Order: sequence, then C-alpha cells, then structure tokens
Amino acid sequence: MGRWEPNARGRLEQAALALYGERGFEHVTVAEIAERAGLTERTFFRHYADKREVLFGGSNTLQEFLVGAVAEAPEATAPIDVVVAALESVGDFFKERHDHARKRQAIIEANPELQERELIKLETLATALAGALRERGVSESAASLTVQAGMAVFRVAFERWVNDTGQRDLAELIRESFEELRALTAGT
Amino acid sequence: MGRWEPNARGRLEQAALALYGERGFEHVTVAEIAERAGLTERTFFRHYADKREVLFGGSNTLQEFLVGAVAEAPEATAPIDVVVAALESVGDFFKERHDHARKRQAIIEANPELQERELIKLETLATALAGALRERGVSESAASLTVQAGMAVFRVAFERWVNDTGQRDLAELIRESFEELRALTAGT
Repeated sequence: MGRWEPNARGRLEQAALALYGERGFEHVTVAEIAERAGLTERTFFRHYADKREVLFGGSNTLQEFLVGAVAEAPEATAPIDVVVAALESVGDFFKERHDHARKRQAIIEANPELQERELIKLETLATALAGALRERGVSESAASLTVQAGMAVFRVAFERWVNDTGQRDLAELIRESFEELRALTAGT
Repeated sequence: MGRWEPNARGRLEQAALALYGERGFEHVTVAEIAERAGLTERTFFRHYADKREVLFGGSNTLQEFLVGAVAEAPEATAPIDVVVAALESVGDFFKERHDHARKRQAIIEANPELQERELIKLETLATALAGALRERGVSESAASLTVQAGMAVFRVAFERWVNDTGQRDLAELIRESFEELRALTAGT
C-alpha cells in the first residue's frame, strides 16, 4: 500500500465490479481486473485473497462497526433493541453506496459461488454479534435467537433497499422490517 | 438401487458418519466409506454427488415435507403460524435420529466446507418455503420476512435439541423458541 498506489483497494473493487457486470464473474480474470485498475496482479493479491473476496472487502469494516455499536449500547437496552439499533446505524455506511450495492447484488445473485461466500460472511457476522451480546451478559441461547432475528430483519430490509430506487434510507427500512416482524409474531 | 444393495443410501450414510467421527471429514475417502458399507465406490456415486453430500441426504425429503405442510395448512392461518406449525411437524422426522443428528452436527461444526454446505441447504429450504407462502397469496416481502424469522427459530431450536440430552422433543423446543422470539420482539 505504498504511496504509488493511491486507493488501490477501491480501484480494484471498482474495476472488478465493472468487469463482472460486463462479462459475468466467471469470465473475468484477476489479471484483467488489475489491468483495468491500472495496477499489477501482485498488487491485487496484496489486497484480496481471490476473485471472490474483492466483492466482500467491506465486510470486516461492517462487522467491526456493528460489534462496536453493540458493545457501546446503553446498559439498560433490551438485547433486540441493541441489535436493531446497531443495524440501523449502518445506514450511514451504505448511504453513498446504493448504486454500488445494487450492481454488487446483481453479480452475487447470478453466481452460486458468490452466494455461498455471502452466506458465510453473514454467518460470521451473526456469530460476532452474538459474541458481543454475550459480553453484555446475555445468555448464549437468547443471544443466538436475538441475533438470528436481527439478521432476518437486516436481510429483508437490505434486499428491499437494494431493489428500491434508492430514495429510502436503509435505516428506515430496517426499522420498518423490525416493526413488521414484531407485528407478525404478535399473535392472533 | 438393485435388490443386491438393500438400503445402500442408509448404509453409506452410517459408514460415512462413523468414519468422519473417527478420523475427521478431511481424512476419509469415498473408497473407504464404500468399503466400510460393504459397497463399491461406483455405488456411492450413484447415490451421492460427493463426500459432503452424504451428510445432507435428508435435506430434500425435509424440504418436500415442509413445503407440503405449508401448502396444506388451513387457509385462514397467519403466515408465521403456518411456518412454525410446519417446522414443529418435523419433530417426528427427527424423533429417532437424535444420536445421528448429534454426531452429524459435531462433524459439520469441525469443518468449514461442511458448514458452507449446511448454510446453502438452509438457504435453499428458506427459498422453497417462501415460495410456498407466496402460493398461499402472501406478498413476496412478507413471505421472506416470515420465513427468515421461522428459520431463526428453527436453527436456535435445532441447536438446543442437538445439545440436549435428547429427552425433549424438537417440536417442543421450536414452540418454545418461537414464544421467546415473540417475547423478545414484543417491545418495552
């Protein structure tokens, strides 16, 4: 990450996204991504382990952010509210990335290998969040259920947000999905 | 599946489970599984696509069963109740399989490749269930959220059941987890 490669990660990500969109994930090589970004293959592998990983560059940041938000939530807050508030707060993280997220999602949905990686990233995130809840004194099984419910809300809201024209906030859609979950479990 | 190989699928499954448990998934070959089962490698591949798949032989049956249960639920039932009732009804499916499920889970948890396959199977199941709800006239986004919530309940309950001494019914644990989800989303 020397000075001679400003924003190499971002440039590689943009180049990969463009090429995957044009030709399909399967038909793009790392060499082509590096070339499009004006960088070398070696630089690519300094930043990303493989061709798939370049689409998941943000997941560590997202996870750290969410774990931090759970850890710092006010003590008296109910676990589910801690998780939903943390998820809502990622709205800002995605604010300027709607177009990027939409393109990325289309690429992932077209490829089983990428869907697989996406599922694993979500599972890793869920495990980390459950750990953060346990740190707050929540029991293991309650932490698990709370996080799984939160992830359900997040996934549905994220899908709505991606397919939306981009006018609505992700945070707003998360809140809305949570209210829906609340209503649908409220019983009859 | 000729008469000369009675219950080949089951025998291969048992042999694989035993060998994976003894030596670890990575260190077992298809040839060894076939040998332990008293069958040929060729027979193995007639029943299972690969070494992983032998641990997921029940997932199609489970999925068909659940989709059927959703389709046949009484018309007036709320979507979440349809899904939870369907999930509860798989209790019978697993009744005699606690020991098997416990061993299988330990093998899966020890191997990232298997965890991956498990996640994909669960996702495929979720997609099928959401489709079955849509067939009942539930909107796409409500179907999605309902099924994700149901899967959250199922996963947590299943984990509790597997780690339990086996005295409690899976159906009972599903009902209990659902009541917990209901309580935790009820708000303050």
